Amino acid sequence: MKAQITITLKNGVLDPQGKAIEHALDALGFDGIGGVRQGKFIEVDLAEADPERARKQVAAMCEQLLANMVIENYSFEIEGA
Amino acid sequence: MKAQITITLKNGVLDPQGKAIEHALDALGFDGIGGVRQGKFIEVDLAEADPERARKQVAAMCEQLLANMVIENYSFEIEGA
Repeated sequence: MKAQITITLKNGVLDPQGKAIEHALDALGFDGIGGVRQGKFIEVDLAEADPERARKQVAAMCEQLLANMVIENYSFEIEGA
Repeated sequence: MKAQITITLKNGVLDPQGKAIEHALDALGFDGIGGVRQGKFIEVDLAEADPERARKQVAAMCEQLLANMVIENYSFEIEGA
């Protein structure tokens, strides 16, 4: 079973990396860009076969290690569930 | 219109960041982890209202700036399309 996790900065948290991308896209001539936010994408292979338990395991991983809950949100999908 | 872009390393490309996460999850007591791969997630606000043109614009952004096509793949979804 595969978990695809997306970790994004909470609204209001400064995102200098996103700003840098925005300026670079602008410099390359892309018009009409209202904003860019950068986050992380993490794919985890799990041995767990039960979707409900896999979901709980992934949520625990996000809260304990992968996401900084003060400034980041996480969301995930379980593939093959 | 919002584009949600996911950039992942191609298969076979070494991913030390993923390996580090894998070891850290293991050290925290998470069992049955077969592998971890880390990628990037980028959200871009577009002024473009036509879904087809937005798709082309985002593909061009990925190829010119966001993804290193030698070692990375990209995929994206257009929200509100």
